[in-house]
Amino acid sequence: MSNGKHLATGAALPFLPDDGKIRLYSMRFCPFAQRIHLVLDAKDIPYHAIYVNLTAKPEWLYEHSPPGTVPAVDLPHESGNASLYESLVIADYLDEKFPQRPLYPRTPLAKAKERLLIKKFDSVIEVMYKVFVGDHVPGTLTEISNRLDHFEKELQARGSEFFGGNLPGMVDYMIWPWCERADMFTFLLGDKYVLDEERFPKLVKWRALMKEDKAVKGSYITGEHHAKYMETRRQGHPDYDMLVNLAKKQRTS
Amino acid sequence: MSNGKHLATGAALPFLPDDGKIRLYSMRFCPFAQRIHLVLDAKDIPYHAIYVNLTAKPEWLYEHSPPGTVPAVDLPHESGNASLYESLVIADYLDEKFPQRPLYPRTPLAKAKERLLIKKFDSVIEVMYKVFVGDHVPGTLTEISNRLDHFEKELQARGSEFFGGNLPGMVDYMIWPWCERADMFTFLLGDKYVLDEERFPKLVKWRALMKEDKAVKGSYITGEHHAKYMETRRQGHPDYDMLVNLAKKQRTS
Repeated sequence: MSNGKHLATGAALPFLPDDGKIRLYSMRFCPFAQRIHLVLDAKDIPYHAIYVNLTAKPEWLYEHSPPGTVPAVDLPHESGNASLYESLVIADYLDEKFPQRPLYPRTPLAKAKERLLIKKFDSVIEVMYKVFVGDHVPGTLTEISNRLDHFEKELQARGSEFFGGNLPGMVDYMIWPWCERADMFTFLLGDKYVLDEERFPKLVKWRALMKEDKAVKGSYITGEHHAKYMETRRQGHPDYDMLVNLAKKQRTS
Repeated sequence: MSNGKHLATGAALPFLPDDGKIRLYSMRFCPFAQRIHLVLDAKDIPYHAIYVNLTAKPEWLYEHSPPGTVPAVDLPHESGNASLYESLVIADYLDEKFPQRPLYPRTPLAKAKERLLIKKFDSVIEVMYKVFVGDHVPGTLTEISNRLDHFEKELQARGSEFFGGNLPGMVDYMIWPWCERADMFTFLLGDKYVLDEERFPKLVKWRALMKEDKAVKGSYITGEHHAKYMETRRQGHPDYDMLVNLAKKQRTS
């Protein structure tokens, strides 16, 4: 195990027991990798997380993730050294392969609708990302709200607390990483940006409920820490190990 | 029915019998829409095609395809005026809903691998598109070949004629529209661009076999016609009805 430390070029692949558990290649602050932590945790699938430095990638990463991206997974329960990459492909695979706590609805049509909604969230990600990396213009926050209207309306139409019903489902988990990161707006932008409770009553409640979800808690990072990481990234030296080092400091102080 | 004519702003939605058949909103030269023609034809699912002018869209298009894009489908066999858009979402839905002639392999892992391969073809589409629209630089053709290497290798590794095995499967149909359009390189570039038979022996054979496939024949357009259409598009006046008008001319001459 890497103890949460991000392994860089030259680092050896950590020794892991031959226990048949899934191995997830991840980066602690990557929203796409977080999607897979959420799915694995929601379905209570045991796994090993191997954190990698995405600026100076370890050589062995490409054997597990041909494009060198995270998330990627090794699947020792399958035959022939199977591995997969791409967050949505992995998420769909996990939901098909591990029937416990199904995250997609059962009918092909309902499932297709969820996939359209996840795809539609790409347009929210696109504008949010501009704020995260400091590339926003006046109007970007308005644009985020405009694009979130569809999700507020959808949640209202469904009449449930989560997109997945009484429990979070695939839509909830696939969009959550960016909704968690929205908390850093307060820190990045200097003035408070909060989701307008009158315009987004359902989404505001949804965010609060999501933060209480067991799977969400498993990979949750505060807006303050997201903002601090993003600041190091903007400066060209992403501090992947920030949380590990903070924890160490707290233990020793 | 629109008799293949592309309906524009102001045109009425054509009257169609209440026969429960799928209605596919399409544009004759759109490679993404062709994906769905291929899936429907491969699975022998009867459907009505409604062709739309994408420059001057008919008002009713948005009722069936909220983003106003093609392909989109109405699904009268489902309850509640169901419709879907996005080629890959529709293709996956059709394969799940209509079990005849399955296009994806059965196991979750094999299916996930096919989805990665389809996703990987996006990088081929990206460079091919530059040639289609006349935005290419020296080296673009080399880049296309470089990106096709992976597909040649994959087909060799599979040891079958098609990516799907003895018959075309989802990968074959999802990538075919761009491979069909590669025939227009000869017309667009003035000099002959052909797939190098020594470098791509499997893909060259695959292309020839695909052209004999019944579903492919159903929506096939020659490289010359693709090139002529693309020429009108480059000039800012895409001639959607080119083939309908050609057929009419041939009938009356």
